[in-house]
Amino acid sequence: MSNASTDAGADLVRDLVDANHILYHQGIVDAFGHVSVRHDRDAGRFLLARNMAPARVSAADIVEYAVATGEALMPDPPRSYLERYIHSEIYKARSDVMAVVHNHSPAVLPFCIARGARLQPVCHMAGFLGGADARDGPGLFEIRDHAGAASDLLIRNRELGAALARTLGASRVVLMRGHGCTVVAESLRVAVFRAVYTEVNATLLLRSLPLGEVQPLTPQEADATRITNEGQVARPWELWREEAQRAAAARTQTPAR
Amino acid sequence: MSNASTDAGADLVRDLVDANHILYHQGIVDAFGHVSVRHDRDAGRFLLARNMAPARVSAADIVEYAVATGEALMPDPPRSYLERYIHSEIYKARSDVMAVVHNHSPAVLPFCIARGARLQPVCHMAGFLGGADARDGPGLFEIRDHAGAASDLLIRNRELGAALARTLGASRVVLMRGHGCTVVAESLRVAVFRAVYTEVNATLLLRSLPLGEVQPLTPQEADATRITNEGQVARPWELWREEAQRAAAARTQTPAR
Amino acid sequence: MSNASTDAGADLVRDLVDANHILYHQGIVDAFGHVSVRHDRDAGRFLLARNMAPARVSAADIVEYAVATGEALMPDPPRSYLERYIHSEIYKARSDVMAVVHNHSPAVLPFCIARGARLQPVCHMAGFLGGADARDGPGLFEIRDHAGAASDLLIRNRELGAALARTLGASRVVLMRGHGCTVVAESLRVAVFRAVYTEVNATLLLRSLPLGEVQPLTPQEADATRITNEGQVARPWELWREEAQRAAAARTQTPAR
Amino acid sequence: MSNASTDAGADLVRDLVDANHILYHQGIVDAFGHVSVRHDRDAGRFLLARNMAPARVSAADIVEYAVATGEALMPDPPRSYLERYIHSEIYKARSDVMAVVHNHSPAVLPFCIARGARLQPVCHMAGFLGGADARDGPGLFEIRDHAGAASDLLIRNRELGAALARTLGASRVVLMRGHGCTVVAESLRVAVFRAVYTEVNATLLLRSLPLGEVQPLTPQEADATRITNEGQVARPWELWREEAQRAAAARTQTPAR
Repeated sequence: MSNASTDAGADLVRDLVDANHILYHQGIVDAFGHVSVRHDRDAGRFLLARNMAPARVSAADIVEYAVATGEALMPDPPRSYLERYIHSEIYKARSDVMAVVHNHSPAVLPFCIARGARLQPVCHMAGFLGGADARDGPGLFEIRDHAGAASDLLIRNRELGAALARTLGASRVVLMRGHGCTVVAESLRVAVFRAVYTEVNATLLLRSLPLGEVQPLTPQEADATRITNEGQVARPWELWREEAQRAAAARTQTPAR
Repeated sequence: MSNASTDAGADLVRDLVDANHILYHQGIVDAFGHVSVRHDRDAGRFLLARNMAPARVSAADIVEYAVATGEALMPDPPRSYLERYIHSEIYKARSDVMAVVHNHSPAVLPFCIARGARLQPVCHMAGFLGGADARDGPGLFEIRDHAGAASDLLIRNRELGAALARTLGASRVVLMRGHGCTVVAESLRVAVFRAVYTEVNATLLLRSLPLGEVQPLTPQEADATRITNEGQVARPWELWREEAQRAAAARTQTPAR
Repeated sequence: MSNASTDAGADLVRDLVDANHILYHQGIVDAFGHVSVRHDRDAGRFLLARNMAPARVSAADIVEYAVATGEALMPDPPRSYLERYIHSEIYKARSDVMAVVHNHSPAVLPFCIARGARLQPVCHMAGFLGGADARDGPGLFEIRDHAGAASDLLIRNRELGAALARTLGASRVVLMRGHGCTVVAESLRVAVFRAVYTEVNATLLLRSLPLGEVQPLTPQEADATRITNEGQVARPWELWREEAQRAAAARTQTPAR
Repeated sequence: MSNASTDAGADLVRDLVDANHILYHQGIVDAFGHVSVRHDRDAGRFLLARNMAPARVSAADIVEYAVATGEALMPDPPRSYLERYIHSEIYKARSDVMAVVHNHSPAVLPFCIARGARLQPVCHMAGFLGGADARDGPGLFEIRDHAGAASDLLIRNRELGAALARTLGASRVVLMRGHGCTVVAESLRVAVFRAVYTEVNATLLLRSLPLGEVQPLTPQEADATRITNEGQVARPWELWREEAQRAAAARTQTPAR
């Protein structure tokens, strides 16, 4: 654990490695997607893995980045994720945000593809999708409004990151047309929790919409459920970590050919 | 097994631990949801795990609760599930009920979200959803009718538990708007069986509704299939227990990092 | 392997055990459903496991039954499947049939629930669903026509078995309203193959129907694909057996608690 | 590795074995489907496994074939895939193609079954489905136009392979009515990547179409995302290979019965 290129707390680095594995094991990221956490001693820095599949991240792969620039804070850094500016610009715009997850969550994508589809909170585990800060559910970021109709859809510079942060506003989740979503929280564990239950809520909506008029949570219900459930975040985290660690251990025990 | 905080039979405690693991392994609960059983020597008590993920429950985590109050019957108890009143109030209202499962079953939730959707029994394994005691299928509990439109949707006190028990009535399953369902039975094994096949029947309905008019079981078919199938409950229980125990053993064998 | 209560070939008994495990591992049966094979030395007998979950069947659990009566051919037999008459009456009616699978295949059930839905062959792996012997796809057996509207839906006597065999006719699959399906073939391996690809084809139809008018195979295409593909049945059998045996071995290696 | 019947590079043979296992582990092929690669020293030959399930392929199963004829280049060859002419005729028509995958990808099939359904690229990982070379998405090959309405749907000779190659044209994916799809690329790793994300994109479309009007990538977006993502193909390949090798190792470690 001590070989991460950071002076952040060892617990924070360990949690970030676990978060990478959990997000993969829960089906929220595949070989793509990334999760970061703000440095615990310096709000101007954040920790993010080098460019690799989240399932394979270890402490040695964690790199420090500058919030101001989105660039790695080490000489001769390893290859970075192209979209690290998602993280840097959200940390810049939102001092309350301590962790950011970006993914291509498979049940969420349809809400980024079908015109007019809305990812409203419909179950009590996903109140964070609505509430007073997000009365209509997560907003949709249309990159064509900022980069034209011939881009590769990636948030590949500070300007696009800043535009994404503006669409996020004060809410907790932002959808990205044809691409995925980005989830933020005041702690790493809550960010992982929200990323998982954004996918759960999206699955429920996909199944509910053909059955009839959906009944979303009221903004007050959304806020009340968010506060209650996020006080219980240790419960899923302990389970998910245990399972993700088991899967990661099995992976590294594969005999060589 | 002897370290549970109860004088209930060791077999009952072991079955309750297995029930927790089975419900997780069968995808009926995730890190949330809970299962209880009435005490085998005292109808005024029931057994329920402390506040934790069902997959991780062991005998030492089982706590006795009072049917009368929904409170733990030990000094300085560990943290309880917020919704233990689901269990206590149903045991109070229904002397025939020996076990209760509460969950956020993923194919059942759409029937708790889409207005007017009905979870009718459409396959012979799920006759318990209908019959003479539940001619229209499970009822839907709308918490706004009891706690207003700003609640966190949880059954967090005796009054809400009693209201839920009234909606359940003489039936075997009650749906909870935006939340999940609660399943009861005259034994723990049958309760687990019904929780699993409620999910199976919901999945079948989700797939059948787009194809045309569904043909539900008649009330007489529902009662007849229920009686037949629940005489065979040992068959799935043995299989599910074997698989859940295997998964639980694999979990605890994960090497430490 | 030598402890099965039969004088049938050891290879046949071994294949029947494998068929039980394969059908479970491929998701075609759960704790319910069963598979039989006609005796290789006596067309008046067939082999079927005792009443238990297919995943847990071993050679010692295989019992001989009489085609004429559907009853076990041993003194003091273990508990039988209630629906063994599905097998006996089909073997009686169809001398070409050497193996029978009965299941509650999860993508097939919607075609047994939604009025008018038709399980036509839409991919070349499932031509056996149509062809000259089944121009409209599998027929639907409505038990109410034979047992009234208050039955438990089970084929629990010879008369109902004979009625089911009549609906099957000369085809290879028969659907059962609110219940499941029954698949037959001229060999055990082909019966397993057809049971698996009936489920695959049903899944494809469920996904295709919302997209537009489906294009089924012509009867000639159905027959041609059936003949070609069933000449390759060793390929999936070898794979499925390898995987099912691995899963079964892992199950029995679970440490005792 | 040295026992493959080829003088191609050992790395290429090893990658081809891995590709077989990856495609199975990712759910793109089942017991059927196949993947080939053009010989690295002779553009007139390609490598393909003998007739067997991809999951079970090892280096000793790789055989050389002639692009000119689609026939094996060894005396007394093992049984070949019936559809090897898919590969040979595409290599003949497209000198830029270095690898070919043919499969029955389960979310893609509906677009080969429902009349008029179009597999447009709707997420940035699947831009290769569109772009300047495939403005309307993949074309659909109707075998009835070439073999009549009584064929077994297989590409079982050079003429049908050539017709399929004409429908593919300059694009990267071709759909086959009632059958599956074929994916090509300028390298083996990119072909596997495209086969996986064709399935991902199809799943997203199946979920998006019921929600409202889908917003496909523009041709320019499709080309831009393809170029970007295929520069990152090592990331999923490393992960998928690790997982497929683990699964393959577990398979061969199953104790004999």
